[in-house]
Amino acid sequence: MKGKVTAKETCAITTHLVLPHETNTLGNLMGGVLLNWMDINSAISAHRLCRRVVVTASVNNVSFNKSIGLGEIVTIKTKVSRSFNSSMEVFSEVYVEDHVTGEKLKCNESIYTFVAVDQNGGTITVPELVPETDVEKERFDAALRRRQLSLILAKRLKPEDASELKALFD
Amino acid sequence: MKGKVTAKETCAITTHLVLPHETNTLGNLMGGVLLNWMDINSAISAHRLCRRVVVTASVNNVSFNKSIGLGEIVTIKTKVSRSFNSSMEVFSEVYVEDHVTGEKLKCNESIYTFVAVDQNGGTITVPELVPETDVEKERFDAALRRRQLSLILAKRLKPEDASELKALFD
Amino acid sequence: MKGKVTAKETCAITTHLVLPHETNTLGNLMGGVLLNWMDINSAISAHRLCRRVVVTASVNNVSFNKSIGLGEIVTIKTKVSRSFNSSMEVFSEVYVEDHVTGEKLKCNESIYTFVAVDQNGGTITVPELVPETDVEKERFDAALRRRQLSLILAKRLKPEDASELKALFD
Amino acid sequence: MKGKVTAKETCAITTHLVLPHETNTLGNLMGGVLLNWMDINSAISAHRLCRRVVVTASVNNVSFNKSIGLGEIVTIKTKVSRSFNSSMEVFSEVYVEDHVTGEKLKCNESIYTFVAVDQNGGTITVPELVPETDVEKERFDAALRRRQLSLILAKRLKPEDASELKALFD
Amino acid sequence: MKGKVTAKETCAITTHLVLPHETNTLGNLMGGVLLNWMDINSAISAHRLCRRVVVTASVNNVSFNKSIGLGEIVTIKTKVSRSFNSSMEVFSEVYVEDHVTGEKLKCNESIYTFVAVDQNGGTITVPELVPETDVEKERFDAALRRRQLSLILAKRLKPEDASELKALFD
Amino acid sequence: MKGKVTAKETCAITTHLVLPHETNTLGNLMGGVLLNWMDINSAISAHRLCRRVVVTASVNNVSFNKSIGLGEIVTIKTKVSRSFNSSMEVFSEVYVEDHVTGEKLKCNESIYTFVAVDQNGGTITVPELVPETDVEKERFDAALRRRQLSLILAKRLKPEDASELKALFD
Repeated sequence: MKGKVTAKETCAITTHLVLPHETNTLGNLMGGVLLNWMDINSAISAHRLCRRVVVTASVNNVSFNKSIGLGEIVTIKTKVSRSFNSSMEVFSEVYVEDHVTGEKLKCNESIYTFVAVDQNGGTITVPELVPETDVEKERFDAALRRRQLSLILAKRLKPEDASELKALFD
Repeated sequence: MKGKVTAKETCAITTHLVLPHETNTLGNLMGGVLLNWMDINSAISAHRLCRRVVVTASVNNVSFNKSIGLGEIVTIKTKVSRSFNSSMEVFSEVYVEDHVTGEKLKCNESIYTFVAVDQNGGTITVPELVPETDVEKERFDAALRRRQLSLILAKRLKPEDASELKALFD
Repeated sequence: MKGKVTAKETCAITTHLVLPHETNTLGNLMGGVLLNWMDINSAISAHRLCRRVVVTASVNNVSFNKSIGLGEIVTIKTKVSRSFNSSMEVFSEVYVEDHVTGEKLKCNESIYTFVAVDQNGGTITVPELVPETDVEKERFDAALRRRQLSLILAKRLKPEDASELKALFD
Repeated sequence: MKGKVTAKETCAITTHLVLPHETNTLGNLMGGVLLNWMDINSAISAHRLCRRVVVTASVNNVSFNKSIGLGEIVTIKTKVSRSFNSSMEVFSEVYVEDHVTGEKLKCNESIYTFVAVDQNGGTITVPELVPETDVEKERFDAALRRRQLSLILAKRLKPEDASELKALFD
Repeated sequence: MKGKVTAKETCAITTHLVLPHETNTLGNLMGGVLLNWMDINSAISAHRLCRRVVVTASVNNVSFNKSIGLGEIVTIKTKVSRSFNSSMEVFSEVYVEDHVTGEKLKCNESIYTFVAVDQNGGTITVPELVPETDVEKERFDAALRRRQLSLILAKRLKPEDASELKALFD
Repeated sequence: MKGKVTAKETCAITTHLVLPHETNTLGNLMGGVLLNWMDINSAISAHRLCRRVVVTASVNNVSFNKSIGLGEIVTIKTKVSRSFNSSMEVFSEVYVEDHVTGEKLKCNESIYTFVAVDQNGGTITVPELVPETDVEKERFDAALRRRQLSLILAKRLKPEDASELKALFD
């Protein structure tokens, strides 16, 4: 296993055409189907960081800002944003393509966390993620705040010890 | 549309048997499949509050604490925890049943938010959710803090105005 | 394995939202999809009686009284009605929920029979089912008549020996 | 619509290879999947009698005598056995092919009933089914007894009026 | 394994009803779904020649001449056209049935090639295919030309050595 | 509609993780599933050329050189290679990623042809495809030979008029 991997090396892209069996009763892509697609693509990014079996540990934040219709072309782009011991936070962006102009509009974002495991399900230490671009560095920093918040909500960290997060409220 | 609905009236239960096509390469239920199941069951709870078409607006927090194997019986129980104008926060609990004793162990929790829409996709005001039990009341209160946090993260609320949330850090 | 199990302990409930890929060319839930859902839910009830692997042995009677449309919420409720050596008869009720009032209307019933098997496919003796309510007791009695009829049709019982069933025609 | 159709003209054959996503936790074809396959193939036979949209009305009798494993080739053969006003009884035979010798062994039978409907769901009178072979004639006669039994169980016929069926017990 | 098998013995027939989840955004059967159906049915024919595990080696030619709509009844009929050492060419014909007259119109043809393999994936010599009818004999001869063309395109045969094919251009 | 589009602008990439329900009885990705994936991705490339609804017209050549196992990461990359009036030839490359090194090995190629249609299914003239790289230019030239061969096989062109193709045999 490599010691360090760049965010770019973990990038995974997938393109879906929204088919009738993936729509809800309004004829739009079902939220749960998109959650499933993002889960699989994010898992591929996490795998590209650690080259081991990965399992979903949590979904931290997903927002659906725009409905996606039948027949639309959806592109999902994922990258690992930061790694912590055996866990990896993966950032996912979802774009819909305008049928006429071909322009891609971002319509969703999500953050999933994966854990690398061995064949017995035990956790494995993963390589360090190296951010390179400004956006990657910003997400790398925000990942720490999200992790602190998640540990507070899980009651495994005291709010006063979450210095990064606490700064937001000062 | 009724003006008030109790949390109990929105309860939806579903039972799944984990089948081969729902497992990952380790033989466990895939995260994305469970996300899809929780999405559909949560949507049923939201529908039972407002009796209108509902669409997934966000997934706020899901944690996968325990892997679920092929052939296991999974029970998903969802209830609306609070409503805000046109949005509804739904709390989901996932249980796995011990094959021998039949005991049900909680292995996942999630919080999804739905919005009620009309046939043109415009938002609709939904009834007020009335919590009755202690657990329902606790979730009702926490829902406000989660909403404030979500608005801050979306940059639609200033941290200093999120009084409920800020109290956590004082 | 317990010696006796009440009907209530075998109750399994599942809730489905009818999605586009489950409908026929008229836009209604396909009979075969509902048969599959009832099979899985009934298998869960049978499993809750015996806590072993169960396989479908027969479908004795299913009637489809009312078509179920796209987007409807379907609740399936199953209970073991009686056990015989290694086989278990499971009663299934299907309800559709009125979108506006939330009232649940029964639209289907079915009776499936399962057999408990070991890892080699050999049959296993199952616990006795104990009916408690009036409806459970009525189904418990009728199950014997259905079993006699099924044995006659399979030519493993002579009509004159089916005393319970014969009484119907006297 | 033709006035009379022979059983042979309604024959429908389909061949399936049992794939991993169609098996249960023992690696055998799930009962519910086979029920779905038989439903669709039987519907095609019913359609070939009446050339109209048909919907499943009931499943009268299905027995699973032999488990069917992953990778096995399953042939389903269906024929209408008799028609009554707007309903059609369809007989289904399921064969599994020996991998080495190619010999086909019958492992299941089922009887489904369909109703022909117009675009509003109203029932339509269907052509008369004409049995030709001895087996077809035997099933044609038995179909009447099954219909009487089904009407008795639905409490729409008194046992003493079911002359065909009553004869069995005299 | 038998030394020779007639084309007729390898015939496999399957019947599909086009369901909503199999259609594209125009409401017609998706090309990829039909490719999948033809692959499975052709594999069954290849299996009936050699009685061993077969894997798809290539798809040589498929043309979609007519779109197939939702609710149409599709019949696929496949037969091995010729065998070469461990490979088998399978010819597939697709018919759509007129809803009113029941007449079957051919709307697609395809040619797939399969290879027989053992449990380690090694190739196995297959029986010789014996054509009987005129159509079978014509396809048997054309199969050799197609194989030569395929070897030329794969640069494993020089055009001047493909005597059968070369004759076309003289 | 633009008059000319570069091959690069039509590029579509998708990434799949091979899941249990997509494998055959040897645990490898089924040929028919890959055919379906390539069909959808190729259709997206064709759509990116013409920005209209496209339907599969033919599959000209697909070869499966290497089996792809459960859990492997498959990347499909497609580009339009040439357009002819209303039809577009799309070239598809399939790569499998080594789990340890991350190296991508090409394991399949395919050529599909699509036709652009209007809402009534009538054909539409599509923009001209402009190849830029050497590989794109080579495929652009070969596309004409493939089209001539396909017209000869369909008996819509005489061999002696297929000058590009005939040159191969001189």
